[in-house]
Amino acid sequence: MQTIETLLNHKTIRNYKSDPIDEEILNIILEAGFRASTTGNMQVYSVIVTRDQEKRNELCKMHFGQKMVEQAPVLLTFCADFNRFNKWCEQREAEPGYDNFLSFFTAAIDALLVAQNAAVAAEAYGLGICYLGTTTYQADKLIDFFDLPKGVVPITTLVVGYPAEDPEKADRLPAKGVVHYEKYIDYTSADIDDIYQEKENLELTAKLLEENQLKTLAQIFTQKRYTKKDNIHFSKAFLRVIEEQGFMNNG
Amino acid sequence: MQTIETLLNHKTIRNYKSDPIDEEILNIILEAGFRASTTGNMQVYSVIVTRDQEKRNELCKMHFGQKMVEQAPVLLTFCADFNRFNKWCEQREAEPGYDNFLSFFTAAIDALLVAQNAAVAAEAYGLGICYLGTTTYQADKLIDFFDLPKGVVPITTLVVGYPAEDPEKADRLPAKGVVHYEKYIDYTSADIDDIYQEKENLELTAKLLEENQLKTLAQIFTQKRYTKKDNIHFSKAFLRVIEEQGFMNNG
Repeated sequence: MQTIETLLNHKTIRNYKSDPIDEEILNIILEAGFRASTTGNMQVYSVIVTRDQEKRNELCKMHFGQKMVEQAPVLLTFCADFNRFNKWCEQREAEPGYDNFLSFFTAAIDALLVAQNAAVAAEAYGLGICYLGTTTYQADKLIDFFDLPKGVVPITTLVVGYPAEDPEKADRLPAKGVVHYEKYIDYTSADIDDIYQEKENLELTAKLLEENQLKTLAQIFTQKRYTKKDNIHFSKAFLRVIEEQGFMNNG
Repeated sequence: MQTIETLLNHKTIRNYKSDPIDEEILNIILEAGFRASTTGNMQVYSVIVTRDQEKRNELCKMHFGQKMVEQAPVLLTFCADFNRFNKWCEQREAEPGYDNFLSFFTAAIDALLVAQNAAVAAEAYGLGICYLGTTTYQADKLIDFFDLPKGVVPITTLVVGYPAEDPEKADRLPAKGVVHYEKYIDYTSADIDDIYQEKENLELTAKLLEENQLKTLAQIFTQKRYTKKDNIHFSKAFLRVIEEQGFMNNG
C-alpha cells in the first residue's frame, strides 16, 4: 500500500538540490497539511512559506548555520496562531479567552499535525524533508524576522526540496521499547540494556564515540548534543516567548 | 496518488463498530508512527495501547464521557517520555539534563509527529480516527490511570476503529487564510470577514446558532466550547502536571 510505504520509507534529508518545487505541488502539500485534525475545527495555526534566497540565507544563520536551509528551495515555518481566531471573535461580539497556556498548547498541537501531514505529502512527491528543532530555540528571532504579532509562536520548521543524497534509513528503537499495553510498565535496568543494544552496536555509534572521544553514546547526547546548560537557556527563552506572545495569563 | 488521497480524504469519525483491529495491522500502524522524524533520533515518547473494554469504559469517563472511547476497539495514548532516555543516560555514566520545559516541549513534538503518522496509517487501512483534546485537560488523571512515572506526560489520544458512519468532510478555511509568504501579513477586518465567510454560511452553522440561541459562531466557541474559565482551569492543571512530572527545573 503506497501510503504505508511512504510512511515506512521516511528518511531525513540533509542535502538538497536547488531545483524549485512546482507551485501546484506545493499547494497540494499545504492542502494535505490543512486536512489534518484540528481542535474543534478552529485551525489555530499559520504556515509561513519562505522561498526567497536572501531570506533563506538569513534564516540559515538563525537555524544555527544548517546549510540545507540555504540549499533547499522551500522552508515551511509552522506557527501556533490564535491571532486570526481572536480577531474573528472580537469582530463577532465574542470575547476570546485564549491568552493562556492551554490555548498555546492546543495551537501547537494543531500546528504539528499540519506539519507532519505536509511532511508525508512532500515525501509522496519524491521530495525530501528535514525538521528543524532550532525553531523553538530561536523563536524570539523568528518572531522578529517574520513580523509575527501577539498570539503567534513558531513551533517547527520543515526544510523541503529534492534530495541530493540517498542516506540509509535512521535506526529506531525496537517497538517493544516504546509501546506499553494497558499500563505503563517502567523499565528495569535489563530492559534499558536490551532496548538500546542495537543502537549502541551500530557502526555509526562507534564512529561517533571515536570522533567525540567519549565512552558512551548517552554521553554524546548529554555532553555534546543536548546539554543541560543549553536546555535551560532555551527553556527560559521559549517560556519568555510564550509569555510575550500573550499565552501566560493563567488567571 | 494514494498517499495524497489518504491525506486529503481525512474525516474525523465519532461512531465506531466494535470490530477488533487485526494485531498485524495495529503493529504496522505503530511502526509507521515510529518512522516519523524525532529530535536527534532520541524517540522521547511512548505509546500506550488500550484494548481492554473495562479500561476503555473508565477512560471514557475521563475523556468527558465521549461514547466513542467505549465503542472503538483501540485507544492510543501518546506521551512525551524522557523517563526511558534518562534511565539510559544514568546507566551509561551520562548525566541527563532533561528536566526542563524545552525538553518537555521537544518530547511533546516527538509524540505528536508519531500520532499523526499513526493516524494517517490507520486511515490507509480504512480505519477511522478521532483525536481527543481532553488528554491534556485530564493529564493528571491519566497519569494515575496508566501509572506514568516522572518524565512522562500524556499529550494526545487517538481513538481508532472501523467507522460506523460516513460523515461529510469537515470544512476548512481557505488556504489563503492560513498561509503567509515570506512575511506574516496581519489580517485586516475585511480579511477576517473574507476568511470566515464560507464557514459562517454553512448550514451547520445556522443549526448550531439555532440550538445554542446565540448570534454568532464565534460566540459558540467563546461561550460554549472553549470558555476562558475552562481554559484557565486546565492551563493551571496542565502546568502543574508538567512541573510534577519533572519538567520545570529551568535553572
